[in-house]
Amino acid sequence: MTSSDKPGTAADAPAETAGTAGTAGTGGATPVAARDWAAAAADPQYRAAVVDLLGALAYGELAAFERLAEDAKLAPTLADKAELAKMASAEFHHFERLRDRLAEIGEEPTGAMEPFVAAYDGFHKQTDPSDWLEGLVKAYVGDSIASDFYREVAARLDTDTRELVLAVLDDTGHAGFAVEKVRAAIDADPRVGGRLALWARRLMGEALSQSQRVVADRDALSTMLVGGVADGFDLAEVGKMFSRITEAHTKRMAALGLAA
Amino acid sequence: MTSSDKPGTAADAPAETAGTAGTAGTGGATPVAARDWAAAAADPQYRAAVVDLLGALAYGELAAFERLAEDAKLAPTLADKAELAKMASAEFHHFERLRDRLAEIGEEPTGAMEPFVAAYDGFHKQTDPSDWLEGLVKAYVGDSIASDFYREVAARLDTDTRELVLAVLDDTGHAGFAVEKVRAAIDADPRVGGRLALWARRLMGEALSQSQRVVADRDALSTMLVGGVADGFDLAEVGKMFSRITEAHTKRMAALGLAA
Repeated sequence: MTSSDKPGTAADAPAETAGTAGTAGTGGATPVAARDWAAAAADPQYRAAVVDLLGALAYGELAAFERLAEDAKLAPTLADKAELAKMASAEFHHFERLRDRLAEIGEEPTGAMEPFVAAYDGFHKQTDPSDWLEGLVKAYVGDSIASDFYREVAARLDTDTRELVLAVLDDTGHAGFAVEKVRAAIDADPRVGGRLALWARRLMGEALSQSQRVVADRDALSTMLVGGVADGFDLAEVGKMFSRITEAHTKRMAALGLAA
Repeated sequence: MTSSDKPGTAADAPAETAGTAGTAGTGGATPVAARDWAAAAADPQYRAAVVDLLGALAYGELAAFERLAEDAKLAPTLADKAELAKMASAEFHHFERLRDRLAEIGEEPTGAMEPFVAAYDGFHKQTDPSDWLEGLVKAYVGDSIASDFYREVAARLDTDTRELVLAVLDDTGHAGFAVEKVRAAIDADPRVGGRLALWARRLMGEALSQSQRVVADRDALSTMLVGGVADGFDLAEVGKMFSRITEAHTKRMAALGLAA
């Protein structure tokens, strides 16, 4: 599934703010988005932000692998199990690319991932699906939010890091199969929709809550995310990014028959 | 890891019996091992045996994926977790190839896998690792036994099926990392060796017990496995194959410092 067949994405949003990305922590004349990694990483704050980003994305993919593989147990059929396992396997390959990139730029991947373990583990602990449909909705919501976030962040990155992030993004969308199954379940029993709508809202709430913890803890990363400058970042911009992602989520849920 | 750096494999064994493989369920002049799929599958019993085999291997890989992903949770470090996740992901790709092959020859993959679900699930249920080292030993033992079995069976297959089985086999051996870690743990505390030796014996015992259930249930498959003829199979040959695999296992465990 690509962005074009998703009901509601935050795809267009980053363009609006990309103009400010160039000043992120550099103060230089060439925007970061026009530099390659070697040039952009000369700025220690930018470098720290990208290491944080890659570490956060890498652990996110590894944790997603683990949870999807576990949720595959809830599958009612072998074919369904295989679909979720396929998605888990795709997440693992994303992890590999991100981890390899960390090693390539001379960072110890584990060290880069550690600061984000608590947030992801907290998210998954709080959103353990109780049945197959909840697992499917979680897979779809997680995949979609990740796509939106990757797309948001890509515009703020140097050319080399952006290429990696977009390559990983291109390979997301494995949750497309979930949409059809959730729709069919709601058609068969409309009450299911109410329960899953609550569930989707809880997923998004927990994701936001953990993200905000990360934003508060990781200055360099947060500054870059919102295209801020070296001496601080605009909290209102973080809020706007979260709003765009939440809005896209809400539209997707509505299209799925889950009024949020 | 390839067979050459494994302490003790059943690698040479199939050659001894490969001479009888040609008569497996065909009674024809051209041995199965010299035919392609189209020619070999004209014999309905051979066809049924291969469908069984692919179904059994496919579900085995899917179940292995699921359990390895789950055991990854026991990992003491992120790097260890990633190693087990990598292995799980490799198993998933084996599953995909086997499943796709079933579809290619016009069989419904789920239907082909179903008869083997109980045996694999029973095995995994009886051998749930209680800690990381048990998980590592299980990964290594499972991977090694699978390699031995794939190698045993390859000699009995038509050229097309053999190519697939050998391709999947070529990509096994992801458990090599486990050997080093288990050795280090035994060096640090030799008592660990005693506990893990018991565990390895239990793994093999459970694997044999489930395999024998399958052999008893699936006539066509069993006949082919031992290079038997259409009107029955030699139970003693099944026993010999199990002996070769057990012997290779015992040698590997001894080399690992686990006297079985």
